[in-house]
Amino acid sequence: MNPGKSEEILTAAIRLFQEKGYHATSMQDIADAVGLQKGSLYHHISSKEELLAWIVARALARYVEELQGIVESRRPARERLKEAVQNHIRIIAENLGMLTIFLRESAALTAEQREAEEEGGRRYRQLFERLIVEGVASGDFRPVDPKMAALSIIGACNWTYRWYDPAGALSHGEISELVWDYFYKGLIKH
Amino acid sequence: MNPGKSEEILTAAIRLFQEKGYHATSMQDIADAVGLQKGSLYHHISSKEELLAWIVARALARYVEELQGIVESRRPARERLKEAVQNHIRIIAENLGMLTIFLRESAALTAEQREAEEEGGRRYRQLFERLIVEGVASGDFRPVDPKMAALSIIGACNWTYRWYDPAGALSHGEISELVWDYFYKGLIKH
Repeated sequence: MNPGKSEEILTAAIRLFQEKGYHATSMQDIADAVGLQKGSLYHHISSKEELLAWIVARALARYVEELQGIVESRRPARERLKEAVQNHIRIIAENLGMLTIFLRESAALTAEQREAEEEGGRRYRQLFERLIVEGVASGDFRPVDPKMAALSIIGACNWTYRWYDPAGALSHGEISELVWDYFYKGLIKH
Repeated sequence: MNPGKSEEILTAAIRLFQEKGYHATSMQDIADAVGLQKGSLYHHISSKEELLAWIVARALARYVEELQGIVESRRPARERLKEAVQNHIRIIAENLGMLTIFLRESAALTAEQREAEEEGGRRYRQLFERLIVEGVASGDFRPVDPKMAALSIIGACNWTYRWYDPAGALSHGEISELVWDYFYKGLIKH
């Protein structure tokens, strides 16, 4: 197959899924968008579900890879966790279309595809947990449950896909500064 | 119309949407589940979208009403905000089916229905903001951006719908204690 064409199909599918919704988009719509006959589209991709699985796998691979680089850099855990939050919100803000599909449509995946997604999500969360464990060990953080703290932070970051507005008053960089500030310092008055 | 039957239809729809997914559930499935002919079902409800809108409206009304009661109680803002977090996570945990549909399928609503949903979401968030503003004024909390802090807290709470496990090691009460602890005290070591 032609990798350039596959990439074009993926890009068109992400745009259509975002504009019309995953369920309302047909293989015919995707074929039209890339100038292929529907029959020829099936040389590249077997089903809409496969396209969705590609999108999800690509989003997760990018998340995990970028986070891995941050976790392995030689800096205090506090700085790395802050950067992990910034990175997470930046990826969502810069890929709202793909991430909206990823965060909303995973219920449409097959069991096998969903298992791969859950495994990717677990690896991602475990990198956050590692930063928290290292930060507790180094004295950057007070002792907390790493899994629960990771889930809380990831949840607050993920939810930006529902309310982040590229035309809004705050940039994604400013938003992630604030989200980090609340998690790091808390609301408590010292 | 018969309110008991409407309630039965709503309950069956929530269960089917949860089990099969919103898009894979047909009006025929819903008719079968409540022992009606499909034609009779249409005496109660005009479309699957209308059922979804009902579910979303009901979820939001419950959220707003319960939160309103908490906000208006005469206690320190710190206690009320903690209770707001507990209440939010409890509602999700006890209504995973309805809330999963609400949080995942709102893209399938009509523009008018979605506007009503957004208005309800805004009212809900503004009640959180009010607690934060009152807590800053009373000295319970340090000065923070009320909207951004509210969105962060609500995001962390909402995300529990993806990972809360009724058979898991922690009850929803224990989970909300931890989520509140991270937001109130932060990760910082004092």
